[in-house]
Amino acid sequence: MAVCITDIARPSAETVAKFQNAEVATVHESQGRKGLLSPKLRPIFRPARIAGPAVTCEVAPGDNWMIHVAVEQCQPGDVLVVTPTSPCTDGYFGDLLATSLQARGVKGLIINGGVRDIAVLTEMNFPVWSIGVFAQGAVKETLGNVNLPVVCGGAIIRPGDIIVADDDGVVVVKQEEADAVDENVKKREANEEEKRKILASGVLGLDLYQMRERLAEKGLRYVKQGEEA
Amino acid sequence: MAVCITDIARPSAETVAKFQNAEVATVHESQGRKGLLSPKLRPIFRPARIAGPAVTCEVAPGDNWMIHVAVEQCQPGDVLVVTPTSPCTDGYFGDLLATSLQARGVKGLIINGGVRDIAVLTEMNFPVWSIGVFAQGAVKETLGNVNLPVVCGGAIIRPGDIIVADDDGVVVVKQEEADAVDENVKKREANEEEKRKILASGVLGLDLYQMRERLAEKGLRYVKQGEEA
Amino acid sequence: MAVCITDIARPSAETVAKFQNAEVATVHESQGRKGLLSPKLRPIFRPARIAGPAVTCEVAPGDNWMIHVAVEQCQPGDVLVVTPTSPCTDGYFGDLLATSLQARGVKGLIINGGVRDIAVLTEMNFPVWSIGVFAQGAVKETLGNVNLPVVCGGAIIRPGDIIVADDDGVVVVKQEEADAVDENVKKREANEEEKRKILASGVLGLDLYQMRERLAEKGLRYVKQGEEA
Amino acid sequence: MAVCITDIARPSAETVAKFQNAEVATVHESQGRKGLLSPKLRPIFRPARIAGPAVTCEVAPGDNWMIHVAVEQCQPGDVLVVTPTSPCTDGYFGDLLATSLQARGVKGLIINGGVRDIAVLTEMNFPVWSIGVFAQGAVKETLGNVNLPVVCGGAIIRPGDIIVADDDGVVVVKQEEADAVDENVKKREANEEEKRKILASGVLGLDLYQMRERLAEKGLRYVKQGEEA
Amino acid sequence: MAVCITDIARPSAETVAKFQNAEVATVHESQGRKGLLSPKLRPIFRPARIAGPAVTCEVAPGDNWMIHVAVEQCQPGDVLVVTPTSPCTDGYFGDLLATSLQARGVKGLIINGGVRDIAVLTEMNFPVWSIGVFAQGAVKETLGNVNLPVVCGGAIIRPGDIIVADDDGVVVVKQEEADAVDENVKKREANEEEKRKILASGVLGLDLYQMRERLAEKGLRYVKQGEEA
Amino acid sequence: MAVCITDIARPSAETVAKFQNAEVATVHESQGRKGLLSPKLRPIFRPARIAGPAVTCEVAPGDNWMIHVAVEQCQPGDVLVVTPTSPCTDGYFGDLLATSLQARGVKGLIINGGVRDIAVLTEMNFPVWSIGVFAQGAVKETLGNVNLPVVCGGAIIRPGDIIVADDDGVVVVKQEEADAVDENVKKREANEEEKRKILASGVLGLDLYQMRERLAEKGLRYVKQGEEA
Repeated sequence: MAVCITDIARPSAETVAKFQNAEVATVHESQGRKGLLSPKLRPIFRPARIAGPAVTCEVAPGDNWMIHVAVEQCQPGDVLVVTPTSPCTDGYFGDLLATSLQARGVKGLIINGGVRDIAVLTEMNFPVWSIGVFAQGAVKETLGNVNLPVVCGGAIIRPGDIIVADDDGVVVVKQEEADAVDENVKKREANEEEKRKILASGVLGLDLYQMRERLAEKGLRYVKQGEEA
Repeated sequence: MAVCITDIARPSAETVAKFQNAEVATVHESQGRKGLLSPKLRPIFRPARIAGPAVTCEVAPGDNWMIHVAVEQCQPGDVLVVTPTSPCTDGYFGDLLATSLQARGVKGLIINGGVRDIAVLTEMNFPVWSIGVFAQGAVKETLGNVNLPVVCGGAIIRPGDIIVADDDGVVVVKQEEADAVDENVKKREANEEEKRKILASGVLGLDLYQMRERLAEKGLRYVKQGEEA
Repeated sequence: MAVCITDIARPSAETVAKFQNAEVATVHESQGRKGLLSPKLRPIFRPARIAGPAVTCEVAPGDNWMIHVAVEQCQPGDVLVVTPTSPCTDGYFGDLLATSLQARGVKGLIINGGVRDIAVLTEMNFPVWSIGVFAQGAVKETLGNVNLPVVCGGAIIRPGDIIVADDDGVVVVKQEEADAVDENVKKREANEEEKRKILASGVLGLDLYQMRERLAEKGLRYVKQGEEA
Repeated sequence: MAVCITDIARPSAETVAKFQNAEVATVHESQGRKGLLSPKLRPIFRPARIAGPAVTCEVAPGDNWMIHVAVEQCQPGDVLVVTPTSPCTDGYFGDLLATSLQARGVKGLIINGGVRDIAVLTEMNFPVWSIGVFAQGAVKETLGNVNLPVVCGGAIIRPGDIIVADDDGVVVVKQEEADAVDENVKKREANEEEKRKILASGVLGLDLYQMRERLAEKGLRYVKQGEEA
Repeated sequence: MAVCITDIARPSAETVAKFQNAEVATVHESQGRKGLLSPKLRPIFRPARIAGPAVTCEVAPGDNWMIHVAVEQCQPGDVLVVTPTSPCTDGYFGDLLATSLQARGVKGLIINGGVRDIAVLTEMNFPVWSIGVFAQGAVKETLGNVNLPVVCGGAIIRPGDIIVADDDGVVVVKQEEADAVDENVKKREANEEEKRKILASGVLGLDLYQMRERLAEKGLRYVKQGEEA
Repeated sequence: MAVCITDIARPSAETVAKFQNAEVATVHESQGRKGLLSPKLRPIFRPARIAGPAVTCEVAPGDNWMIHVAVEQCQPGDVLVVTPTSPCTDGYFGDLLATSLQARGVKGLIINGGVRDIAVLTEMNFPVWSIGVFAQGAVKETLGNVNLPVVCGGAIIRPGDIIVADDDGVVVVKQEEADAVDENVKKREANEEEKRKILASGVLGLDLYQMRERLAEKGLRYVKQGEEA
């Protein structure tokens, strides 16, 4: 029942570009706190920051055959998303596959598995978010699917959804919600910039966010040390 | 029953200064091998090194409201210590809270939970020891306590105790024991410096520490390869 | 029953030198995908790369006494391999032991346990692959063995076997197979270099490796998005 | 943005009944190896076996308020599925909630979090699949969603999908695919029953599944011990 | 600096008896949600339930010598609490030590480490809460402390504090707070019994706890499936 | 390079029989504390106890093809030992394979991976020690080895070595050392039986093992509570 879906719809380059400098944490908040991948996915080098449409790839444990199929479906600016059908830390991906992806203009890899050749990947400046590093390579025996919706790191990712990844991790934005999310991101960024200045001047969050009254209502008591009863 | 203790007693600036360049491992040994936090707490960037009095903060899982309360209790040179009441890797702390703490002269954060915005925190040179990085933010709904004694990473930390943290992890020194511990630290450092020179010259630890006799007593046998019976 | 085997046979300097620039992943593939240590062993700094004959050391949990015994058995170019008899993350090894090993010309340490003083070890450029960092030191009360075969990170390591370690992890090559493995390594490296160029030019792995026919035989279907039935 | 979806469509009682005695492993195979939840979800007592339509509930970490909202949406024969928005092992669920669910005829609970009162739940014969047991209760401060699609244990679960759970774990069957899956389940069960008899008689799987030729083609060699070259 | 504190103060038999049938979850709630040990401590057989004053014992990793010292300090009705100074899963405790403790009337063991001989311990009906089972025994080389306050499973336990353990885990009650906590426990038990009857009759928690208004205030919306806008 | 070694040498039935009632912990001690497998391998039901010669099987992650090859090599009384080449929790083994093994008189399975159909395996009384339970089945695409020496759970197991497994875990005894180990086991068992009686009578381990003097020498101090200085 293995299938490779071709000619997937992608968001416009303009839409994708909006997320190029967005922070994962801000995007996550801006879309109602959804779409975040597990914190087990960490970048192999820092700092790193990418955004692009997902090409998805489901592989068997210890088998990277379908990644080769997925490479052909990638276009410049894409982000490849790979997830095994059961937990596996094998090094599914190394410098040869990265060379191939980089030749096609792919921005980076998100893999709910292991990666290898990280010294070379770092020199190549090809960013990868993975659950670990392991030199154990993969076999090429079992089929899987390309460009079906997948669950990767606990989040649903459909081909063409926008992946945003930075030092904090990875978040996915639904293709059809991208422009609306971007508007929220812009508002939050402006808002946070303003807050940052106020906080840097020494104003307390307790005052800036007007928390004192609600804390008192909930019952917070202030007591001098040594005067506890 | 939530409480915020104010006006906590702190060690003198002189006492704190003694630990500014002390190594965590040396401090731990110097106070009888106690006070070390779990190795799960790791720095978000390296190298990093801080020492300062603890302001403690207990939060509900996924809720960082009380951190805002704790910020107001912090003074220049302090170290904020945050621990959830049950295991949680959410990103309780990010660049806005760091801006606020840095504005108050706080040296860093120890958190038995997750952190986010680590690219910005790294640029700000605001050190954090955490159990992970996660972009998932926190809510502000549930009260907790500030400046009560806490168990953080398996160690008891009371407000005003001195936190020492470096690339190896985090250790806590009881406020009332700080000067005595410092004396031991100084002795150990001098001793280790001397040993380092001797070992660098090629003298073996077996001889320097006079271990040969005790090893023989315990029954260690030396056998040439191929002559095992 | 503790024993220290002395005068172990080592591979020739020529043989060891062959592995100096070999990648762990390539060595692993070149010897039939065996000898790889667990991915839990990670370098304390990156990049790092060493190769050398193993001196093996088995220690009790939380006890590093036998490391001092092992140091004496090390010669220039060796790699020290330490494994506890049950899982333990204590910091068995720090800057004093590293000073001693560096004085003897030892290239690095592989330890299926914890390490400390990593800021100093990084400055000293003494590479360590460990399962973690922990300031908790060890005691010196219980004997163990030096230069017996050990299982470390799931792999069998005998004294004199060649350890190769880089950013991807650690692999062991049997002393008697080293020259044959090196021949395979050289072939793979040449082969990979050629593949890299072809892939960099935009040729797909599907074509380079002639995968299309076998994928079709196994039943992979290509379907345009929106035309799934 | 919290919402509780009411009046969800459920599969017919006939359809659900078909899965009452189906094994999780068989269902998983019968629907093309998809829909399986993470092995971290384990039953609190064994043996246990349930099947029923899902009512889904998304909760904040450490907060079980929305479970009370979800209870009202449950009908006889349902299975409640609870998932926190970030990893949390708190004991979200205990004997009072179980009493309420049992009063409504709910068959059991699937929770990607912790559970408590398991001695009483065992006496009540109310089955729960959870990631752990923890006496730490939850607060009731933060809203979440009821009957939106959720990712639980790595699988997508929509309200009304059929949950099948036994000693091996938990699998979800899409409502619209349930009858087709059941047909495959029945075929597999019959097929397995037949195979079981043949294998019990001593026939080897190598012969029953005609594996010998393909093994030879792939290159498997048989060698007598002592005759390895 | 190893010490064994003798003649520790214990709560009265009457006070201890009050907790004999108390549930861990109820005790935890009744003392303001504190004192709970990590969920990693699990009983080796179920059901199991004990309560008694703590004798505390701190051991080196892989070394159970001090448990022998602690045994002598135990009196009938006590609970022995053992914690290693760093994480270790070795089997510190087996049937011989259990025989000795049972001969002294000790009710059970709480150990933040491993245990062995669990088949025999189960037959003996000697309950143990541990972080795992491991046949690897311990050595007897390194001193530790008996009856100093310890942190075990993240909770502070002082000698004479009351340990309550059941299928849900372990909680500690401070000796001086025991009678007050017991009063709260009794109230909660009565209250829960009443609630259980009401919920069993089909009344919803939403109504029993009068949650509907507050849920609406916070913004929960009810929407029929298919009518989402 | 896949190979299946046939006609392996096994210890005599008499030798194997000696271990039938031996405890894993006792065997481990009796052979100098070696040969113990990782505590991650746990029995799927308790109590369970087996002993028999190992047939070893190395499989690819997520692939159980070679288990079918290994079944043919099993004889009555054997224990099948399966280990993946990289960490994998898939359910490699279920009731059909168990039926086949039971038909051949095999005593049980040791697998450094996952297992499924555990309800049926429990009814069949076919014991399995595994690292987990997972309904996800395996594919049959990749070759591996049968009856080569393997590292399983951190221990070296060669075909024909004796596996002993009980509720505490799994230990391996080298075929050539079996009779000598058994002698030690018998002595230890007699010794322990005697000790058990003495300890049950109330004699302390401190006295039975004459520990008091050595504790004092090492510096243990006894202090009455309240008299600490």
